[in-house]
Parts: sequence; C-alpha cells; structure tokens
Amino acid sequence: TGPPPKVTNRGRTAAPAASANSETSDIPEYEYFIQPGPRGYPPLTEYLDISEVDMMKRPDESNKIAHHTALYHSDYLIVRRGQEFQVKITFSRPYKPAEDKFALEFVIGSSPQFSKGTYVPVFPTKQRQTTWEGRITNTSDNVVTMAITPAANCIVGKYQMYVAVVTPYGIRRTRKESTRDMYILFNPWVAEDAVFLDDETERQECVMTEMGIIYHGSYDDIAERDWNYGQFNYGILDSCLYIMDRAEMPITNRGDPIKIVRVASAMLNSRDDEGVLVGNWSGDYTYGVAPTSWTGSTDILLTYNSSKMPVCYAQCWVYAAVFNTFLRCLGIPSRVVTNYYSAHDNDGNLKTDIIMDENGKIDRNRTRDSIWNYHCWNECYMSRPDLPPGFGGWQVVDATPQETSDGMYRCGPASVQAIKHGQICFPFDAAFVFAEINSDVVFHSRRKDGTLEPVRVNRTHVGRLVLTKSPGDVTRRDITDQYKFAEGSTEERTVLEKAEEYGCKREKSSPPAADVDVVLPNLEISVGDNFELNVEFENKSDERRTVDAYISGSVVYYTGVASTEFLFLTPRVVIEPKMNKKEVAIVESKKYMKRLVEQANLHFIVTGKIRETGLIITAMKVVTLRNPKLIIEVSGRGKVSEEMIATVEFTNPFSFNLENVYIRMEGPGMMEPKSRYYRLVIGGSSLTWTEYFTPQRAGTSRVIATLDCPALRQVQGQASVTINP
Amino acid sequence: TGPPPKVTNRGRTAAPAASANSETSDIPEYEYFIQPGPRGYPPLTEYLDISEVDMMKRPDESNKIAHHTALYHSDYLIVRRGQEFQVKITFSRPYKPAEDKFALEFVIGSSPQFSKGTYVPVFPTKQRQTTWEGRITNTSDNVVTMAITPAANCIVGKYQMYVAVVTPYGIRRTRKESTRDMYILFNPWVAEDAVFLDDETERQECVMTEMGIIYHGSYDDIAERDWNYGQFNYGILDSCLYIMDRAEMPITNRGDPIKIVRVASAMLNSRDDEGVLVGNWSGDYTYGVAPTSWTGSTDILLTYNSSKMPVCYAQCWVYAAVFNTFLRCLGIPSRVVTNYYSAHDNDGNLKTDIIMDENGKIDRNRTRDSIWNYHCWNECYMSRPDLPPGFGGWQVVDATPQETSDGMYRCGPASVQAIKHGQICFPFDAAFVFAEINSDVVFHSRRKDGTLEPVRVNRTHVGRLVLTKSPGDVTRRDITDQYKFAEGSTEERTVLEKAEEYGCKREKSSPPAADVDVVLPNLEISVGDNFELNVEFENKSDERRTVDAYISGSVVYYTGVASTEFLFLTPRVVIEPKMNKKEVAIVESKKYMKRLVEQANLHFIVTGKIRETGLIITAMKVVTLRNPKLIIEVSGRGKVSEEMIATVEFTNPFSFNLENVYIRMEGPGMMEPKSRYYRLVIGGSSLTWTEYFTPQRAGTSRVIATLDCPALRQVQGQASVTINP
Ligand SMILES: [Ca+2]
Ligand SMILES: [Ca+2]
Repeated sequence: TGPPPKVTNRGRTAAPAASANSETSDIPEYEYFIQPGPRGYPPLTEYLDISEVDMMKRPDESNKIAHHTALYHSDYLIVRRGQEFQVKITFSRPYKPAEDKFALEFVIGSSPQFSKGTYVPVFPTKQRQTTWEGRITNTSDNVVTMAITPAANCIVGKYQMYVAVVTPYGIRRTRKESTRDMYILFNPWVAEDAVFLDDETERQECVMTEMGIIYHGSYDDIAERDWNYGQFNYGILDSCLYIMDRAEMPITNRGDPIKIVRVASAMLNSRDDEGVLVGNWSGDYTYGVAPTSWTGSTDILLTYNSSKMPVCYAQCWVYAAVFNTFLRCLGIPSRVVTNYYSAHDNDGNLKTDIIMDENGKIDRNRTRDSIWNYHCWNECYMSRPDLPPGFGGWQVVDATPQETSDGMYRCGPASVQAIKHGQICFPFDAAFVFAEINSDVVFHSRRKDGTLEPVRVNRTHVGRLVLTKSPGDVTRRDITDQYKFAEGSTEERTVLEKAEEYGCKREKSSPPAADVDVVLPNLEISVGDNFELNVEFENKSDERRTVDAYISGSVVYYTGVASTEFLFLTPRVVIEPKMNKKEVAIVESKKYMKRLVEQANLHFIVTGKIRETGLIITAMKVVTLRNPKLIIEVSGRGKVSEEMIATVEFTNPFSFNLENVYIRMEGPGMMEPKSRYYRLVIGGSSLTWTEYFTPQRAGTSRVIATLDCPALRQVQGQASVTINP
Repeated sequence: TGPPPKVTNRGRTAAPAASANSETSDIPEYEYFIQPGPRGYPPLTEYLDISEVDMMKRPDESNKIAHHTALYHSDYLIVRRGQEFQVKITFSRPYKPAEDKFALEFVIGSSPQFSKGTYVPVFPTKQRQTTWEGRITNTSDNVVTMAITPAANCIVGKYQMYVAVVTPYGIRRTRKESTRDMYILFNPWVAEDAVFLDDETERQECVMTEMGIIYHGSYDDIAERDWNYGQFNYGILDSCLYIMDRAEMPITNRGDPIKIVRVASAMLNSRDDEGVLVGNWSGDYTYGVAPTSWTGSTDILLTYNSSKMPVCYAQCWVYAAVFNTFLRCLGIPSRVVTNYYSAHDNDGNLKTDIIMDENGKIDRNRTRDSIWNYHCWNECYMSRPDLPPGFGGWQVVDATPQETSDGMYRCGPASVQAIKHGQICFPFDAAFVFAEINSDVVFHSRRKDGTLEPVRVNRTHVGRLVLTKSPGDVTRRDITDQYKFAEGSTEERTVLEKAEEYGCKREKSSPPAADVDVVLPNLEISVGDNFELNVEFENKSDERRTVDAYISGSVVYYTGVASTEFLFLTPRVVIEPKMNKKEVAIVESKKYMKRLVEQANLHFIVTGKIRETGLIITAMKVVTLRNPKLIIEVSGRGKVSEEMIATVEFTNPFSFNLENVYIRMEGPGMMEPKSRYYRLVIGGSSLTWTEYFTPQRAGTSRVIATLDCPALRQVQGQASVTINP
C-alpha cells in the first residue's frame, strides 16, 4: 500500500493554528512604514531608544509578592492576569510624553495576532488603551516605571515582552531577549477572573498549598496518604505548559479554564494522546514505579517533560494528585476529593449488578460490575458561562481513564451543583459522575433458565462519603452534602427522578426486605495478624429463622475486583425469634498473606437465603489491613539554608525477606524527591537511610516517605518540620 | 527504558467489557442442573429435541418484507427492533405446551449476560416473558412457529440464536450454527424506538434511499454531486458493525442511538483512532483516491473492513456521505446537509476576522480565519432523553475533523432545535455548530502600531443557506429555517443574545455603513473560458465619491483558503452622486488555468476605502467554474437479471493533455463500483469506456460516474435507468 500518506494543512487552513507555547515568533527589530530611499532606510538614532528593561522579577520585589507567585522556583517574572504589575524601562534620555511614543508588546506563540489576543500592545497613554491597561506610575531621569494590567480573561502561559518605540518612519524594538520572558497565570484573587474564589482560606489551600492529604482506605476505616503537589518546584510550570503543547491545544483557547481543564483531563492519562500517566492496576509494575510508591508529582511531571513519554504507573489518586499540581500551578483553585464506594466502569448506569445463584451464593463469573472502595477525582473552581446561571463554583474533573465507557478518556468539568440537583443534561459528563455517587446495588438471583430476578436493592451503599482535606488544616472535611441531598429527603427523591428523566436507568423493583439482618463488624487488623471474624445474624421476626449462609473472604484490589478467595464457609444458622446469633470465622494470616495485592484490602461478603421466607440477605465489608510504618526523624537547627538530616527507619516485621525494595522521600521547600534501592531486607531485620538536606524557606512542612516492594506496598511515614527564617 | 509496558485489566475489572460484536461466546450444548451420577449425566433423549430451525430469512418471506430489510444483500435474517418477526422450529415430536419447556436464546458479544441485555431468552408462554416478547403463532405436526418481538431499545448488531429445551435435569441447546445468526437494526417505523420518524416519505428517503445528491458549489451557484450510499450492498452492514468494534464500543451501549452516532462521528475520521477516512485538502492525492473521485460509499467501507486501515482520502462531503451510509444501514434516519458559507476551524467563535491594511487592502498573511464556501454534515433523527423536552428530532453530527479546535475530532449529536433557539449549553457541541451558521464576518483595519479597528461587520454572510435533498425527489430543499430564525426578526436577535449569555463572543461594534455599495455579478464560466468581471460601484449619497479600490481574484479551495492570486487591480473609482459606475476586468483563461486547484473555484474580493469619508467597502463572490461533463449512455432491455451496457464518453476540451486519468462508475442495484485508468488523454481527443452489467432489482435508479486526474477534478456524469421486473 505504498509509503504512509503525507497529509498537510495545505488547502485547509491559511496557516496552521498556533498550538505550542514553546514556539515563539520573531518580531523584527525595525519595522518601517516607508519604502527605503536611495540610501536605504533612515537611521532612527535621533528618536527615543531603549537601553534597559527591568522586569522586577525577584521574589522579594512587589510583583511576585502582590501576585502570590514568590514561591515559584523560576528565573522569570510570574504574574496573574487582571492585576497590575510593573516593569522599569531605562531609555536613552528622559521620556517626553508629548513627543515620544512607545508601547510594551506582549506576544505568545508562533503567529501572534492582535485579534486573537496573542499579540497585545500596551500603551502608556489614556487615549490609546487596549484590553490590557497601561499607565506610567513613575518617571525619574531616563527611567520610566510602567504598570500593566493584563486582561482578566487573557491567555495563560509564557509570553515574550518587547518595548517598541514608534517614530514617524517606523518602529524600533528591543531585541528578543529571554530574560524578559514572563508567565501570566490565572488569578483567583481578582473578581473579573473566571477562577475567582472569594475566600482567602480556600485560596491559600487550593492554590498555594503544596503538601496535601489524599484519603483512601474504606468508608468506615479511612486511611491517609501524604502527597507533595510541588506546584512551585523548578520546572513544574514549564511541564504544565508542555502538557498543553503536547495536546496541541490552540494558544487562543488557553485563557478559558473550562477548555484547559477539559484538555488536561484527557492529557493526564496516556490513552489516545501519549499523555502523562500510564494506568496500571495489575500489581505488576516491573517496568515502572508502583502507583503506591510515588510521594509527589514533581518526579512525574519533570520526567514527562524531559522524556516526552508517558510515565509508568498511575492509579486514581496518582492521576488526581498530578492533575491537582497542574491546576494549582496554573492558578486554578483545585482539590483532590475521595468518593467512597464509587460505582465504576459501569458506563454511567444507575445500577451495579451483583449476580447470585438461586441459593444466594455470589456468582463471581457472572458479576462483572464492580464498586471501587474509593475513587479520587479533582474539583476545580470556576464560573460556567457556557451553562445557565447557578452551575459555577466547584467542577468535577477526572483524569482516570474510564475503561468501559466508550472513548471516555476524559471527564468533566461537571458542575457539582448540577450533579447535586440531578441537572445532568449539561456538559461535561455530569451523568457519569452522578452515577458514580448515586448508583443502586442490585442483587439478582439467577434462575436456571438464565433470567434474573432482583432480590435485594441497596440504595445507600454507593457514594457513601465524599472527603477532601480541610483548608489550612490536616483534618478531613466531609463534603458529601455538596454532591447529594440527605438520604431519604424529599429533595433526594426529586433529584433521582430528575436524573431518570434524563435517561439514567434505575432499578424499579423493590423486593421485600428480609426480617433477618446480617452485620459484619469493624476490624482493625495489621498485616500478618491472625484474627476472628464475627458475623452477627439478627432475627427481627416473631418466628424462628433458618439461614443458609455463604461467608466469603477475598483479597481485593481497591477497584473492588477480587483477587483470591481465602475464606469460604456455608453455615446453616438457626436464630430464635427476636434473637441474635454469631458465627465466628477464624482467619490465620498464612491464609491471606501470600495472596495480598497491593493495597492489602480484605473483602468479606455474607449472603444467604432464609429457608422460611425464601428472602435473600446480604452484607459487605472492606477491611484495610494496617501496614508497618516508616519512621522518619529529622534533626538540625531548623533554619533556612542550614543543612539538616532526615533519617528513615524500617523494620521488616515478617518472617520472610522483602526483595527489590524502593524507598522514596521528599518534602516541599526542603528536599527534592530522592529514592533509594535495597535488594534485600531480611525478615526481622531493620534498615536506616540517612539523607542530608537544606531547607529553602521558612514555615512548617512535612518530610514524607514511602516504601515499596512487590511483596509489600503502601508503607508510609512522615515527619513534621518547622523551619525558621 | 526497557520494553514497552504491558498493561492488563487485571485488578481493574472483573472481566474486560465486551466491545466486539465479531467476538462470540460458546454457549454449552448441555447445561446440567444436577451433579453427574455414577454413570455420568442422564441422557436427555426422552425429552423434546430440536431437529431444525427455519429463520424465514428469504427476501420474499414476511420477515424481511415487514421489517423493510429485503434490500440488504445478506445471507442472514435482518429485522428491526420493537417489531415482531417469526421463526419456525421443527421438533422431534409435536410440542406439548403443558409438559415441554423451551426458549429461544439471543446472544450478542463475548460475555453474554441477562442483566446487560446481551443474553435474552424468549419464552413462548405468557407467564414467562422477558423484555423481548414471545408467542406461538402456529403449530402443525412437529413444527412450531414462534413470533418474537425484540425490545424497542435492545442492542443493535449481530446476534446468535439458540433453541434451548429445558428438562428437569438440565438444558439441551441447538449447536452454535452461523446460519441462525441474525441482525437486529434500529426501527424508525415503531413508535417505541428512539429513532421513530412518523413520516413514511421521510423514512423512505432517510433510511431506504441509496442514491443521493450532495450539494456543493457556492451559495448563489449551487452544484450537485450524485452519491451512491449503497447501504444495502453486500458487506456494508458488517463494515458498519466493524467500525463500532474498531472503536471498542461496549456492546451494551449499542442500543442507544445517541452513543452510536457520537462514536461514529469520531470513528469516521482517522484522527486519534485509525478510523475510516483520512482527510486531505492539499491537492496531492498520490497515495490514495482524490476526494472528488469517489462515486459512493461502498468501496470505502469495504476497503476499510478488509484492510483494517484508514482509507485515503476524504473531504467534508466524503465524510458526510460515508457517515450517511453508516446511519441508514443501521436504520437511523439520516440525511446529508450542506451549509453555504460555513464559519470553520475557528473554534466555535462567533467572529471570523479578516484583516486589512489601513488602505483597505486585505492582508493575507494576517488573515487566518477562513469561511468555507460550503460544508457538509449529517442530520440524524432521534429522541433526546438525555436533554430536557423539546430537543429530540433532527440532530447534527459531523465526522469532518475540526483541525483547530482542541481534540474536536468528533462533533454531535447536537439538536437542531437547540441550535435554532440558541440553547447551546446542551451536549454535544451545539455551540460549535451554532458558530458555523451564525458567525459574523468582521473586517478589521490594522493600524501601524499593530492594533485593529473593526471597520465593517457582515452579519448575514455566514450560514446563508442550508440545503438537503427533498424526500422522494431529486430537487433541493431549503432547510435554513430549521437552523435560524428569519434575518432581522426579533427571534433572531433573542437567539443571538442567548448564545452570547453562553459565552459565545460576538463583535459588539457597529462601524458606520458606507454610502457606496460594491456589487459583484453572478458569473457562469466554463473551465478554459476567457471572461469579463464587471464590478459595479453604486454611490447612494448626494455627493461625489472617490473609492481607492482593490480588486483581487484568486483560485481558492472550497475551504476558502486562497491558492494563488491571478488578478489584482487597484483602480481609483470616481462616482457621481446617486450614480453607478462599472469597472471591467478582463480575465484570460491562461491566467487562472495553470493554477486551478481541485474544485475549480475563483474567489473575487473587492475592498476599498472611500476618500471622502474614510469608510471601508467590501464585496466577495465565489464563482464555481463549469467543468466538462462525462456522457453516460445506458442501453439494453431494462429487465432484472438481463445484461445491459453502459458507455461513458469523455472529450478533453483543452489544448493540453490529461495524464493519469481515473474514471469510476457505479449504480445502486445495478453495478458495483468499477474504475478504469487512462495514462493519457491527448488534448482534444475523446475516450469511450463500455461496461456490461446486470441489474439485480426493478425500479428507477441512476448510473453515476466521475473522472479524475491531477489537472482536472470533479468531472461527473449520470444517467437515469428504469428496470422492469
Ligand atoms: Ca489521554
Ligand atoms: Ca477519529
């Protein structure tokens, strides 16, 4: 079939659309209005000339302080749109407002155009103003201080700046000079910006905070994971712009936070577009880093920017954490949220089907839906001019690829308000997020002829709890009520009916409730413990009840997918009227230890059929096993720029050896990501890793570390550190 | 960096979601309810056995006639959902309703499940009905005729059918047998189907008609292109299912026309997903077929299905035509529409910017937006349960990739009603389509300092006319009023304001109108003609006016992109009060002939500045050059199954030779696509190609042909043929 077709844009567009911030244009140093005379162009020496431009970009100068950008490790000026900043221009002689004409020119991308907002001249005089305001705030000798206010909806990214002097014969400009390059970011502090967030505590958390907590574990046994978003680290801002370049996102769209977050939700995963992170849930991470091993986003983003290749590997919280870095780095307020019992991979249905045989035993082959113990996504804050009023504010975006939904390798922004009110007809993907928190779990009994009969519907299991970190604090914040009305309220029913109108299919049948309850206890078990499982049956009726029960225990992934069953009992339980009865299962650690998958969850399901009534009972419980911990100790004087020591200690609590062990450690403003490899940690033995570091700035922060090896994942530790100036 | 990471679904999902209709499952022939005894399983010989199943699938049998599927060239039963069809089952003995239990089982995809609608048993008894109804319509000896009504929302695609006899010990089934495979399609004839279209004339056109007309050319000089959609041709239905398989579209989503058309809008182009057609607007089609050369969809779809590789090349009407085949083949009512003066590649803005210098001369380097002379997309008919009431009916889908809009390699379905009313906040991509028909053309004057001043706004140029073929006829139907309210009406202004509320940016300024009009004439020019261009200036004022005018003529692509300028005049025109003045430009064919691009359009632009007022005037006109024609003659008796002769004649009207000439010909129900190659057609010489063919069915149809070579494209011919039974 010959060589691959070579397809150009010829005939389709006058010029390719600028879609790379990294590409720049060359603006001529001289631009004449006249034809050259016999001796060429006239020299412009008699006119105003520019000898120096001071971008006032030091972290302690007013620009970076006023614009909340002093923390960025960057050699360039970084400001936020819709807010004034200043530069100092030294001319060849004092500036004469009546005679001299000059402009500052801000240019972004390869084909700057005034009408597209990619070329913006800013004038010092009131009469000649563009969408970016300019004024002179000070003149002294040859030095003019010029204040510029970029439009509050201008393009976000890296600009080149020129000073242009206009003479009757033409324009003379400063040469292209990278020290005058500057970044313009979103501005949550300014009311005119689409990302304006009118709460300083929230802004400090959702834009400025580097050290985060991501919740995982299970609904009734919440675990925490420290994460260094590192949005101010050296090279991170450029990496974020590279992500948009890699997506070939038109420069002209980069002032719109809706478009930016939608593109990013696609680009954060590698599906379709060679995006940032490769998903892997298999437990085999041979050719990359285990998702549980990462301590922050810095390594991931810098690796992607330098290798130009997707980084291995991620699971949901890694996608959400790196997305969070991207958003905060660009100035879009954002947070990572965790939804416990997330209906997943079920294509936006309001039903999660669990299939049982006629005796009430779960049929694992036929049960294909799963409920994730938890799922992490992001919320970002912005107005929604594309929707009717009322849907601005927090928006769900999710970069975790949805494997079973067609082409859903991007998700959001979906208005949280719209989700709460069942207004799921609005873009983007609101119906999908709605299902993640509102699905019913339907237990079906499968008849011999292959048909199914719904026997139990649990309408409260999914979306049980939505958490995020409290602003300015390390505590949890329950934001479930921002997604759903109270269980059983009139509003809740109205919302579900509204969603049904928009085509979300729900289970209509309400099978009769059984008069026997089965309850599984909360358990706190450390990896390696033997333990007892007490299953309690409660007969609420006035008659004796006999339950043919199935008690099953499996090791499961956090996706709810069962790995192996280590416990299976089929007791017949006879319960007297109005009485309780306990069934006790003893589990030895050796039964589950060899089969542990990475997140060390045990999943217990009890189902059963009541002989006397034929009704089905069910109960489910996820138990997160306690892992051993890393002990981190930090010593030193705790002063900026003075060396300190961090020590990580780990004791292998098992009788078996751990092989191919990686430890990673980092801390915002103190320590860049570091890692260390141990081929072998013998059973019962200890290791100590000592690392020197020099804090860069004052404040309270944390050093965090993880240990990871194929046999034991998600071992963590952290230490709080206070650095004085 | 080692071998490529191997990523599995392990840990993520219990089982991969079925996403290939071509994959089938193996349903066991025997399925016992009991454990085997000491002598194995009991033989089920004493129970009812199945000796034969007749799918009643001949084109002249009731199933295909009642379901409007007799035209499909297929060896299988093809029916539509929500409508009863019949099969005959011959048992080993007469069926005894009181004793014997049997079911028909319909299975689709690799992991059939009752709860997902991929495994559907259908029972003959009233007491045991599923979502698909079953009843016995006749019994005679051992033969039972069973009528089945698939659910009106069931999955569309290729099913396997089994007959299962249920005995006390287990189930005995027919063996898997491909002759019992059958297709279930959408059903526009049934009110319960989401694609129900309550108009038989429209259904006949938009589902059953194979031969179409696609409009092109320019607004005031409309041209037609014949196209053989060929949706009933052998292999086309399988190709359409393959497209969904290739997209890995979950089988469970394939009952939803909204999801199907959205997936298809992405898959019809090769961007992102190795979809069906590679776009190419360059004029260089060396490694494929020129877009203007195709005569129908059959070749394209069969090639894609067999090669599994994108087919080269397409432009907008090819995308729309093949998409139309896909939709009609699956039973979704659809039509190709043409929008004249389509605002394009401008990312859904309501502004198309044209940049001029201060004298009113167009600055081609700085003008990056283009207005396509026309753009083709599809409308498909369906309800929209995902949206509030009122947005069902015709929906825009568009498979032409939008190069400059981020990731927009799919478009729609967008409700035409929503577009008309400016309700562009609803999915999918309504704002984008809205801009294609409602943008303003803004002429800017560029000042020396780089800023722009809008000097003229044309609010009526874009989306001037939307056409589709009339149902049951070969005439045009103007459907502009389905997309827009009348120019100047109150409703029109309300709609534009509504769109602005949803964030569509418009040009606010209303520069004063000039008191001089400039008018370009309609021209009918054949390729190779010398001609005169009369530019008429009309002075409406009471004073003398002097216009410094620029008259420019370019060869342009249909995308509005200029190839080369062959005419450039700069007259100063003095017009007396209330008078007209003509400027005449004489154009010799040699000026434009060598520079012709494929669609042979000439684009004239007149701009100018009025000396006395400083105001700007503009006029634009696209002239489609008349190409030579192919002459097709058909002879023969005009009876089904009797051989006939088609003769194609072409005379090279030019003095130069044509090289590498391809002629293609086809006709629905008569002739499969055929093509012939001529290395050289000498200037002034003629060629004749004679082809024998045998009509397969009665009726009136057309044979169509195209001639294509690099120097001359879009030469067409057609002949009407009536075939008697
Ligand atoms: Ca992606
Ligand atoms: Ca595609």
